[in-house]
Amino acid sequence: MTAPNPEPAGPAAALEGLRAEVEAALDRALPPEGAWPATIHRAVRYSLFAGGKRIRPVLVLAAAGAVGGSREEAMPLACAVEMIHTYSLVHDDLPAMDDDDLRRGKPTSHKVFGEAVAILAGDALLTRAFHLMAEVPAGWSDGRVRRRLAATAVLGEACGTGGLIGGQVVDLESEGRTIDGAALEGLHRAKTGALLGACVRGGAILGGAAEDDLARLARYADAIGLAFQVVDDVLDATESAERLGKTAGKDEAAGKSTYVSVHGLAGARRKAAELRGQALDAVAPLGERGALLAHLARLVVDRTS
Amino acid sequence: MTAPNPEPAGPAAALEGLRAEVEAALDRALPPEGAWPATIHRAVRYSLFAGGKRIRPVLVLAAAGAVGGSREEAMPLACAVEMIHTYSLVHDDLPAMDDDDLRRGKPTSHKVFGEAVAILAGDALLTRAFHLMAEVPAGWSDGRVRRRLAATAVLGEACGTGGLIGGQVVDLESEGRTIDGAALEGLHRAKTGALLGACVRGGAILGGAAEDDLARLARYADAIGLAFQVVDDVLDATESAERLGKTAGKDEAAGKSTYVSVHGLAGARRKAAELRGQALDAVAPLGERGALLAHLARLVVDRTS
Repeated sequence: MTAPNPEPAGPAAALEGLRAEVEAALDRALPPEGAWPATIHRAVRYSLFAGGKRIRPVLVLAAAGAVGGSREEAMPLACAVEMIHTYSLVHDDLPAMDDDDLRRGKPTSHKVFGEAVAILAGDALLTRAFHLMAEVPAGWSDGRVRRRLAATAVLGEACGTGGLIGGQVVDLESEGRTIDGAALEGLHRAKTGALLGACVRGGAILGGAAEDDLARLARYADAIGLAFQVVDDVLDATESAERLGKTAGKDEAAGKSTYVSVHGLAGARRKAAELRGQALDAVAPLGERGALLAHLARLVVDRTS
Repeated sequence: MTAPNPEPAGPAAALEGLRAEVEAALDRALPPEGAWPATIHRAVRYSLFAGGKRIRPVLVLAAAGAVGGSREEAMPLACAVEMIHTYSLVHDDLPAMDDDDLRRGKPTSHKVFGEAVAILAGDALLTRAFHLMAEVPAGWSDGRVRRRLAATAVLGEACGTGGLIGGQVVDLESEGRTIDGAALEGLHRAKTGALLGACVRGGAILGGAAEDDLARLARYADAIGLAFQVVDDVLDATESAERLGKTAGKDEAAGKSTYVSVHGLAGARRKAAELRGQALDAVAPLGERGALLAHLARLVVDRTS
């Protein structure tokens, strides 16, 4: 692990530096692979270090930074959101759910470790995420402790039955049924948007954001949360499995309604571009402080995997 | 729901009053059954209100009370430990794990709602448990906020790969193999003892316990945590499914090592009685304040289901 550049030349370099910090922090946040019982730690690390793009943790750090917060203060949430994102993938890939064999170009957890360990590895990632949020150095000020608890509440809300879990339930129930544009948007605001929103809002809370910045960042989070899913649907319809690192064309095969099936490919792309514009507008008043968030909004929409 | 008696006549009456308070608090802590998406809330409530004895939440409240803490302050942890206990049962019962059709005399979650929803219901209970711990009224003092975070850290540790989840992994790996007494004790200290220990220690922390009381309660927690599992093994070997409300004789059928298979039925009963004695000794210095904890230690060992 190379030391990150403390003064990166631009948003792309800043992004790389933050990613490296996140990798190191995730590694420190978990017991070593050989810790008792070894099976579960192998399984947890297998999925957490499977080559994820770390978009969620970087969003946390970028949001905290945009309001003048420290990376040290934001890093536990950065790690927690990546653990929660990974747990949701491990459980969603299970045979009883989406039944996927491939994730980020590698066999899914249950293909490698069996279903029982995959279920427990997801449980372990979810548990460790919240445990990490509760670990606070003894010398912390009352204000920092309160901000930590507030960010944890935002995270809990986003991952619950009104967010991540609720979205997955509705997604499963929507298979083989046609749903309209409003229902589709509701589903994805819960399944994808809620956690992305918690990254931005939680990071801003930990950074000590004032009310007006919080409102700006909430608008930004809403736009990129939805954009993320629209782009996912476009990629599922247009890209190869090799490039995606997961099974392609699954949505159509499963009879799922997507932005592409509801709005057409051109309509979905237009929607993504519109949402990118909304995200950029929201953080424009932050000026240079918001440069990394603006860069991330472009990355989310222009990515090809 | 009848109002609990504020001045119960003895430990048995106090216990009933606390149980009623826990039922009401659990109900308030969850979205209503019809909330979007309805399926997941039905599944969560189905398992959480399936007739559990609420031993863990009562332990939390009893430990907080034994050191002079308030029920209001301890109730979120009381609800959280019951949610986590229930999530662990829902996931352990899955076909990929212990494959159980019956729990507390009712069909298990996956038999009623299917595997996908059962997995998500477990995830939802685990998530809500930690979310609940992070919800703190705005007017709370800094001390109360810090105690809440400290109790959450104790809970996170107990539910992680060194506790509840680690124990389940080792339990699965032990099926069909003979393990010795020390390995069996290690397994159960993780799988059952860690969460019971967190109930007592977490309740004591929320109650503002002094160091000497914390140490006493930790000894009590260790003893009843292990006693709980020893008695479970005795009951599995001796009681009918009808009385247990779950499949009986499963351990032997699965080729699992238990306290009965390792120490014999008489040896296991002797071990349970010895642990009850240790628990009672640990709380004896608390006098009347520890009466409910002493009552619970007797209940855990003398129960028949």
